[in-house]
Formats: sequence, structure tokens, C-alpha cells
Amino acid sequence: MSNVAIRQIERAGAESIAGLAEQGVATVHEAQGRTGLLQPYMRPIYPGARIAGSAITVLAHPGDNWMLHVALELCQAGDLLVVGLSSENSDGMFGDLLATSAKARGVQGLIIDAGVRDIRDLTDMEFPVWSRAISAKGTVKASPGSVNIPVVCAGCLVNPGDVVVADDDGVCVVPRETADEVLSKSIARTEKEDAVRRRLAAGELGLDVYGMRERLAAAGFEYIDRD
Amino acid sequence: MSNVAIRQIERAGAESIAGLAEQGVATVHEAQGRTGLLQPYMRPIYPGARIAGSAITVLAHPGDNWMLHVALELCQAGDLLVVGLSSENSDGMFGDLLATSAKARGVQGLIIDAGVRDIRDLTDMEFPVWSRAISAKGTVKASPGSVNIPVVCAGCLVNPGDVVVADDDGVCVVPRETADEVLSKSIARTEKEDAVRRRLAAGELGLDVYGMRERLAAAGFEYIDRD
Amino acid sequence: MSNVAIRQIERAGAESIAGLAEQGVATVHEAQGRTGLLQPYMRPIYPGARIAGSAITVLAHPGDNWMLHVALELCQAGDLLVVGLSSENSDGMFGDLLATSAKARGVQGLIIDAGVRDIRDLTDMEFPVWSRAISAKGTVKASPGSVNIPVVCAGCLVNPGDVVVADDDGVCVVPRETADEVLSKSIARTEKEDAVRRRLAAGELGLDVYGMRERLAAAGFEYIDRD
Amino acid sequence: MSNVAIRQIERAGAESIAGLAEQGVATVHEAQGRTGLLQPYMRPIYPGARIAGSAITVLAHPGDNWMLHVALELCQAGDLLVVGLSSENSDGMFGDLLATSAKARGVQGLIIDAGVRDIRDLTDMEFPVWSRAISAKGTVKASPGSVNIPVVCAGCLVNPGDVVVADDDGVCVVPRETADEVLSKSIARTEKEDAVRRRLAAGELGLDVYGMRERLAAAGFEYIDRD
Amino acid sequence: MSNVAIRQIERAGAESIAGLAEQGVATVHEAQGRTGLLQPYMRPIYPGARIAGSAITVLAHPGDNWMLHVALELCQAGDLLVVGLSSENSDGMFGDLLATSAKARGVQGLIIDAGVRDIRDLTDMEFPVWSRAISAKGTVKASPGSVNIPVVCAGCLVNPGDVVVADDDGVCVVPRETADEVLSKSIARTEKEDAVRRRLAAGELGLDVYGMRERLAAAGFEYIDRD
Amino acid sequence: MSNVAIRQIERAGAESIAGLAEQGVATVHEAQGRTGLLQPYMRPIYPGARIAGSAITVLAHPGDNWMLHVALELCQAGDLLVVGLSSENSDGMFGDLLATSAKARGVQGLIIDAGVRDIRDLTDMEFPVWSRAISAKGTVKASPGSVNIPVVCAGCLVNPGDVVVADDDGVCVVPRETADEVLSKSIARTEKEDAVRRRLAAGELGLDVYGMRERLAAAGFEYIDRD
Repeated sequence: MSNVAIRQIERAGAESIAGLAEQGVATVHEAQGRTGLLQPYMRPIYPGARIAGSAITVLAHPGDNWMLHVALELCQAGDLLVVGLSSENSDGMFGDLLATSAKARGVQGLIIDAGVRDIRDLTDMEFPVWSRAISAKGTVKASPGSVNIPVVCAGCLVNPGDVVVADDDGVCVVPRETADEVLSKSIARTEKEDAVRRRLAAGELGLDVYGMRERLAAAGFEYIDRD
Repeated sequence: MSNVAIRQIERAGAESIAGLAEQGVATVHEAQGRTGLLQPYMRPIYPGARIAGSAITVLAHPGDNWMLHVALELCQAGDLLVVGLSSENSDGMFGDLLATSAKARGVQGLIIDAGVRDIRDLTDMEFPVWSRAISAKGTVKASPGSVNIPVVCAGCLVNPGDVVVADDDGVCVVPRETADEVLSKSIARTEKEDAVRRRLAAGELGLDVYGMRERLAAAGFEYIDRD
Repeated sequence: MSNVAIRQIERAGAESIAGLAEQGVATVHEAQGRTGLLQPYMRPIYPGARIAGSAITVLAHPGDNWMLHVALELCQAGDLLVVGLSSENSDGMFGDLLATSAKARGVQGLIIDAGVRDIRDLTDMEFPVWSRAISAKGTVKASPGSVNIPVVCAGCLVNPGDVVVADDDGVCVVPRETADEVLSKSIARTEKEDAVRRRLAAGELGLDVYGMRERLAAAGFEYIDRD
Repeated sequence: MSNVAIRQIERAGAESIAGLAEQGVATVHEAQGRTGLLQPYMRPIYPGARIAGSAITVLAHPGDNWMLHVALELCQAGDLLVVGLSSENSDGMFGDLLATSAKARGVQGLIIDAGVRDIRDLTDMEFPVWSRAISAKGTVKASPGSVNIPVVCAGCLVNPGDVVVADDDGVCVVPRETADEVLSKSIARTEKEDAVRRRLAAGELGLDVYGMRERLAAAGFEYIDRD
Repeated sequence: MSNVAIRQIERAGAESIAGLAEQGVATVHEAQGRTGLLQPYMRPIYPGARIAGSAITVLAHPGDNWMLHVALELCQAGDLLVVGLSSENSDGMFGDLLATSAKARGVQGLIIDAGVRDIRDLTDMEFPVWSRAISAKGTVKASPGSVNIPVVCAGCLVNPGDVVVADDDGVCVVPRETADEVLSKSIARTEKEDAVRRRLAAGELGLDVYGMRERLAAAGFEYIDRD
Repeated sequence: MSNVAIRQIERAGAESIAGLAEQGVATVHEAQGRTGLLQPYMRPIYPGARIAGSAITVLAHPGDNWMLHVALELCQAGDLLVVGLSSENSDGMFGDLLATSAKARGVQGLIIDAGVRDIRDLTDMEFPVWSRAISAKGTVKASPGSVNIPVVCAGCLVNPGDVVVADDDGVCVVPRETADEVLSKSIARTEKEDAVRRRLAAGELGLDVYGMRERLAAAGFEYIDRD
């Protein structure tokens, strides 16, 4: 299926999405069994943003940003654009004009396995982007790709409507069907970590909090004293 | 021609240079037909600087910063140093002492396809650098290179006297002879973009603003409804 | 020697360590003959930190952070964790829980040839980290490594107890035995540079300050006048 | 769905698979609309092999080859192993012992987004492998992954039972459901190319064979004569 | 100057070109003062070829091989195609059809800062290629570039008509105007090296042949005896 | 300790060295507890060589091969040159002249964390090299390094006199003091693997040969039947 745009997608519930944003990437990734993480070369253009939204997916070709215009029409307020490329490319496919349009339509941010430009403007307008590169290289509008088909973005499969969480630690994808379950597990994990954090802050060691000493010995690990 | 310094170069007009700085890298790159961009691995050591100046070009060898001293003598106030390497290298060829000297002579900044160090000092003295790396690795002064010959810097040819524009999006080179023409085109482009920006901010789609719908259909692009 | 932790290490004197922190990476690296620098891909997660401490060394396996817990027990206040990997890996081996534990024990910071996560939290608690990557990828505790054996971290040998200096320019290792000597040389270098800086700031050229003109001519370097 | 092995998969027909092998990667990739190609860092360990088979998919963790043993039991003669990693890793997960086992079970080859070792032995026994790296680094068997779930391998989604084609040009994935259709298109393409090849071999130009001259002019392309 | 093809170029003499091919890349690069070398990621698709020819230069865009067809018409027997890209790209821009056409016109080989495919066929027809990647990724013919303008290929400026030498060591560019001079220097260097080689083969040391011992001592280099 | 050459080193016994060569890199690396492996970017310039020898270690600076001449004088027949760099560099530090000298002195091969050239000649004279790059880039003889001090080469510490094993799988370092022990363990491992290989070749599964089924179940791994 290529050169198509699917007009309608299903989305997770707004509360689940908001809850996942609050939990953040590291917790959500752990809560769903250490899966769903985009490769770590995906970095935010400015620090501090933490968002989650339903993925409007885009498959684009190197040096061609035509499909981003198509995708914007299909976005609802709160959605995120997720752009995968048909081959490795760092050209600047998105800048202040597309960001202006995206903001006008309520799009929360962009995840793109390529480059982005006008980052001073995007930072000023607080439109967060996670990308593989910052590049002013201009693009054409010549080769159709697709919108709202499954795409691989930075090594991870993203289906349209999946919940994408992004913050300073990177980007994590939660399948739409499991968003509620992953949120519950994330909350449980956070609560458990809060208790551990208090003990560690008080000076207890992870070796004791997690009961690691026996397992270390069983694994043949040895302490050596020098005197 | 090697192991030489050309003492005199021609420069573009000061107003053209100032105008290009104001336009910024992304606009200038587009206005001159999407050419002249250095590779995107060239990143500023701190955000927010936007400068343009005449290029004093340097060809240096890996691990050797001798030619930067030679180049500084040939700089005028407002110039930029542009350093290409004879082979890939990330050593820290430039630090706070050279920056002190450069500032004293009115040099605006440095574009270097190698490393830079003392970046806390350089940030404090507001001396902007775009480089391939940050590295404290020291260098020697053993092998002469050249100054003010054509050099390839980060994949782009730079002639002495070319106007180099640099900001958070990267670095773009404008041949001296076309600086006025590129500035005019940049200004025209900016005006046109301002009009488009207003329409996009009001909620119009790029698909309509740019009249893309017919071209999409002509390219065989299809919309699919799921219900 | 593998799967062991050495409980006791020797440390350099506290004054030497504090002095090296003050001198900074670039000066220390030069003062010890341009050696000891970790590769420049090691970057701080936030700008501005400048620290030095005795190295508690860790050899860890890809995707496994077990040894970091072991290492924390062996840290004294003021120490630094230095983590080398048995093969290239960017997984997020250290986050806010380990940082909480490290702070509770007075550890100053972390140097890790792998990934780190929860960087917003680490930034807020001012726990500095120099790493090869930022990644939320979770890790297991399955394969023992070693603590306080010599490790290669980012291309540089680090012995337990070596003084590690880290700032915005990168990371430099000073062998424990030579810490005093390197500090003396660093101070001498700084004083000498201060004098040079004043002359350069006043507009003198490095060519004259360093007496390079004769050596340039001897090397066959030529100036060419265009008219 | 994690830590599972799906025992049964559906496969494409043996004739389709054999036909796709004969067509080769470049033709198959073009015939299915320029999709399905793994990233070009996937290289064969020796030149000359050209194979196709049904994918037995494996999701493995860095430094852990446990799942390859699980996968081998589920292979039929003619299948291919396709291994994706949960994070970037180059360890040597497969060597002469696993290759001996794979050959004994009729497995045709291995596609692995990690490392491979004993390549002299594998070459001698003519067991072809396409990998991201050659590395002797040993692995553990500690963390379960999954077998026969959808995996991303070298940037491309692979479902169990998909037809994977591999030769000196790289690796291409054909969804099982479209194998027949892609084979027909590949054959048609090959026939068309044979006719073109004869004309080009006779000295005709692509400009004329493909009728490009008008389109070039329409695109504003100009010829300039120097005299 | 963009979207143009210059029809006529000047070429170096056939004897100079043949002589440079015989000398090989390493010698020619040294003979012209260690300049002109393309970056070492440019590798031959098969070992053993050693060629030289006049450069027909191409500037192409990522994922677009249109200009290669334009360039072939402008080639004479013995020429080499040299392709630079407007931004980093590894798509397979050249395969067996273009190679068939190139051979029919007497083109000797291809130097391309992108990908190449059908490498089995190209190897069989002995059409040598030096490229940054091997990739089956197909390309479009949508964006005009230029032919026979100066291009940067793999970090090196190439003017149309320059002599390009390529062998297992890489690719070196000799400006057309200096081809005779560089050939003379290459021959002189080869003769000098032959004499040195005989002495080294007889067991003499480079330390003595090149008279390095004094210079080592002058540089403060010391020998230490352990007993 | 810098700018020095240690004249005398201790070596492992000739039989141990020969035995380790026979065992090969993958086996030796496993036999010494999965340690000692150089990073996998170190590749042989031609396939098929398998050697071991005592390391004469060299610390060189980028673009400078002076120390290789110093090192050759200190080599005995059967030794290997191991070259680490003070910062990342790919210049061609070794070619046919140095190889001629090395062969004349009985040196078996070269391990270099930089580039090598004249690879056609080196292949013809069967002088094996493992390097990070192939590059014709010439070097100078300006900055002294050191010979026979501990060096880090491709991420691994090498002491002078350590036994270095190299083959198509890469390069592994065995500390001199443990050469006999590692050889014994390698032989034991090979014998054990021979028995396993026979069972696997007969069609038994690793799951059974290694008794993995219970451990898989204990780890929560599940088989799922689709029908």
C-alpha cells in the first residue's frame, strides 16, 4: 500500500494520553517491558518539553516533504506527527511555516527521522521537535509517500493512532490498544520507585534495597581486600 | 598551490553582508537555489548567535593549528575564519587564547571542520564557533598549510572573501560575486513567506495555499476512507 | 581478573584533586603532555559543571548495570564513578534512582561510556554526567562485571584512584601518582597563558608573541601579494 | 507480546520464493514500489550468495543470543533466520556451532542486525550471513526475547513468514501475502529491462530510450556551449 | 549556476592520464603535496582495478539519478564519471543498465558519493566503481542537478576535466593544468622509493636510511633500557 | 612517560604463541572470559590470515608515522606491531616501504588504529594488516610518540609483550603472563566444542544439547500455538 493517505484513525482516550505524558519516556518504556523506544539519536531541539499524543504517521522520501502537508489536514488537536523515511536522510523537512500551520491546527509536536530547520523560531514558538538532525537543507515536493500507514521511525514500528511519548530522554511508542494497561503499569512503577527513592536518599544501598548480595555471590562475584 | 598565504582578498559590501546575516541560513540557502550549505554535523557551541562575514580561509592539517595564527593577521574587523582540514580530525584547534586574539582584531566568529575547546570561556566572551566537535585535545604547530586559498569545509567549497552566514540552523556560503543578488532573492522570499505564514496561522492548509491537491492527484496519490 | 570488586583503593590528596578541578580539562591535558583525554563523543548532559574526583572504576556489560550498585558501596564522598563497557553500547544504565543513591553517598558525578536517562531529574538535582548517549533504554542485572580494576573508558585507560577531571570540554584522566606534579605544571601553564592572554587582548599577534615568523619561513611558508 | 515463541507460521509458496531469489534484491525492491529494503549497512560476509526464504523472526537483546537456539527448532528446510535487536549492538551472536545446527536443519542463511563470528568457517561451509558487523565478541544466554513476532531489522519491519531476498546488493523483505504479485511484477520488470539493456549496449542513450529530453527542458534544464 | 550541463570540457593529455594510472593513488597524492584525496569511506566494489580518466562531473540530489543520464552523453571514451551529492545520501543511483550504457560509450568507471547496486553484474562486466555505499535503493528522475560544473565529491573539489586516479587505496584528483607536472614528480618519487625499497629489503632500517636518529634526539626522544 | 622507547620487552613462549594462533580469535576471546577484544571496526585488508605474535606497542599522533620507524628496530622475528593513536585518525601511516622493512626483520603483521595504504602491494607480499581504515593519506614525521609503553588500541589496553591474535574475526589481546593458561583453556574449549558440533551436525538442537528448556520456562518464556 503506497501513495495513499488513510483519512480516519482510531485514537486512545485523552486521559490515557495525558497520563502517559506525565509518566515520561523512561517509565513508560520500562512499564511496557522495555519495548517501544526509538533509537537514541532522536534528540529534542530544545530541552524541557514532555508531551504525548496520537501518532499521525508519515512515510516520506529523502529530500521530499510533500507528505507533511497532506498529514497536517488529517491531524486533530493534540496529535503528534511521526515521520519515517524510505532511506536515511538528514534534510530539513520541517521549519517555521509548517510549524505555524501545525500550531494553528493544535498539533503538539513532531517526531522526524530526518532534519528540521528554523529551530530558533520553533523554540520561540514552543513547538517541540525530536529529530535525527538539524539541517537547513531545503526539500522538494515531488515524490508522494503515504500518510497513516504503519511506518518504521528510528528503528521502531509506529502504527497510526499509537500513543507517542517524548521528553528529554527520547521517544517511546505505546500501541493504542494497550495504552490504558501501560498507563496503569507506569503509575504502579512510579509509586514503587518513590518508595525506593526515599530509602536510597536516606543512604541505604541498592545492594540491600533490591537484595542483590546473594545473587551476586551465586553468580560467582567476589570481593577482594587489598591491604 | 600549498604552504602559502594570500595577503589580500576581495570582500562583498558591508551592507550585503549585514543583510544576509539578518536573513539567516535557511532563507539564504533557499534563495540561492538550495546550494552552499555545510554538512549538518557543523553545530554551534552555544545557541542564539546569527552572524555573517567575509571568509578568511584556512587549510590545516590534523592536529596542527599553526595556520590559524597566520590567518588572524590577515583578518579585518567583521571577517570570519573558515578552517578546512586535509583529513578528518576532531582535535581542539582553537581555544580561549586564539579567541582573545580574534576578538581583539574584530573577527566575528569561527567555522572549523575540526574541534574547539575552552567552550565555557568562548561562551562567556560571546565568541561564536560552529565546529564538528568539542575536544580538549591539544595541537602542534609543525606542518604549514595555507591561508586564503579555496578550501573544502564540511563538504562545501569556500573561496576567500565568500560571505559565510551562520546561525542555529548551520552554516551557508554565498559566493562573493552573487552576494547582492542572493540578498535580494532572500528578501523577496522572506516577504512571500510572511504572507504565507499569516494564512497558515489563520488555519488555512498548505495543500490549499500552495495548490497541491491537483498535483497530488496527478501523481496518483489517493485518499482512503476507513469506516 | 574478572567478576571481582576491589574494596580498597588509594586516592590522591584532596587539595590536588580540588586544584585540578579548578584548572580544568584543557589545561590539565596539556600540562601532562597531551595525554589522558577521553574521546570527544563523551559529552555532559548539561553545561557548566566542572569537577574532579578519585575514580571508582566499573567494567560493565552491554545492557547490564548491575555493577553500578556494587560500585556505589565502595565510593567515598568526593569520588567519581567511571564506567567502561565490554562492547559498544548506548543503553541507559543510570537514572534518577542511582543518582539519588550516589548523591546520598557524596559521589560527585558519573563518567560512562554508555547511555544515561532521567536527564531532566539529574539536571534538576545537579548531578553531572558525561556520557556517550542519552537513552531511556532499560537494563538488566544479570552479568557480573568488575569494580576497581583498570578499565578502558572512551579510549582511555583509567586505574582505580586516578584523578578524573571533567568539564564542558570533556574528560581527562590524571594518574594518581602524578597528580601533584600535573597540578604544578597546570598552574605554571595557567600563569604563562595569563601573560600571553593580556598581550593578545591588546592586539599583539600570536605570530609575534610566540616568535613564529622565522619558523614559518624556515618551513618554506610563503606570503603572496595580489594586486 | 514478549518472551514468547509462536510455533506455527504461514509461508509463501516454494515457487514464488525460488522465483524471487532468482530476480534478486534490486529488481524485487523496485517491483514492489521501492519498499522493503533493509538499511545498506547490512553486508554479506562473503560475496556471491543469492537466496530467498521464509523469515523465522527473532527479537534479541544486546549481547544475548539465547533466542537463536529457540528459533532453530521452529525452522523448516529453506527458511531464513531474521534477527532484530532491542538496542544497537554488534556482538558476535552467531558462529560455526549455530551454523552447523542451522545447516543440519536446512536453514538457508541468516540476516542479523548485530555481529557474527567464525566467518572463515561460515564461508567454508557456504552458510551465507548478512550482518551489521563481524565481531568475535561472545554473548550470554540470560534474557529471553521472542521468536516469530513482528520485528524491525535494520530499519525495516519483518513479519514471520515474509519472504526475505538477499544478495550482494543487500536484503529486501516481501510481505508473504504479496509474494506472487511482486514476483510477477519483478519478472515483467526484468523483461522490460532486457530490452532496454540491448538498446543501451548498442550505444543508444538513456536520454533517448527513456524520452527524457523534453522533461529536462520542461524542468528548466539548460545546455551550455563553451567555445 | 545550477540546472545546467556544460557540453565541452578540456582534458589532459592521454599519455599523462595513462602515466598517472600507472603510478597509482598513493604515489600521485604524495607527489602533488599530499592533496587531492577523497575521503577514505570511498571504497571500490571489487579489488584490483587501477584506472585514471578525465572527470565528467555531476551534481545530483539525494535519491535522484537523472543527471547521470545527461552526463553519459557528454562522455568520451576513457572518461570517468564523478558524482557529488547536494546532501548526504546512500541510495543506489547506478546499476547494471547505466553501466551497460557507460561501457558502450567507453567510460572507464564511476566515482560516486552515494550508493551503487547490481554489484555482481558490475563486477562481472568489470566496470569499476568507488562509492560510499552499496545499496539497492531505487531512485527517481525528478530534480535536475548539473553536469560539468565544479563539484565537491567526498570532501574534495573536482573540476570537470581534472584527472581522477582510483585504485584499491582510494581516489585522488589531479587538476588538469598540473597533470604533467604531477606525473613527473610521481615518476621521480617512484624511482627514489625503489632505491629505498632495496635498502630496506636488505635489512637496513628507516632510521638510518632516512637519517632520523639525530632528529629524534633533537626532539627530546629517549631510549630506555630495562634490565 | 612520553617520547620514549623501551628497548627490551619480555615475550611469551614461542609454543604458546603458535598455539594461540592456531586457536583463533573467537576461541581465545571466550577462553579468557570474553575479554581482550579490539573493537570490531578493526578489519583485515585481505581475508584468510591468522597470526599471533608478541606486541611491540606504538603510541602515535594523528597524521604522523615517525614512531613506526623507531619500533621496527626493536622488533624481533615473529613480533607484531600494535599502533594506538592519541586521537582518532584514519591517515595512511603504513605502506609498502614500511612493509618491506617489516618483512625484512621478520615482523608478522600490523594492528593499527588508523589507516594503511598500498594495500595491493601488501596483499601481494602477504603482509597482513588489521586497521580502522584504508587511506592513501600521507603522513609526516614531526611529533615523537612512544614505543613499548602500554597503549589503548581500538578500545583495548595492550602492554608490550602481550600476545596478539588476529584473524578474519578481528583481533584479541592476551596478557603475556596468562598466555599459557589461556592456551590451555582454549584447547579445552575447542575439544568441548568439537563434541557439541558433532551432535548439532547430526540434527540435535542446542536447546537439548545445552539443556536450555527448563531455564527458558523458569525465565517465564512461553510457546504459543496458532491454529
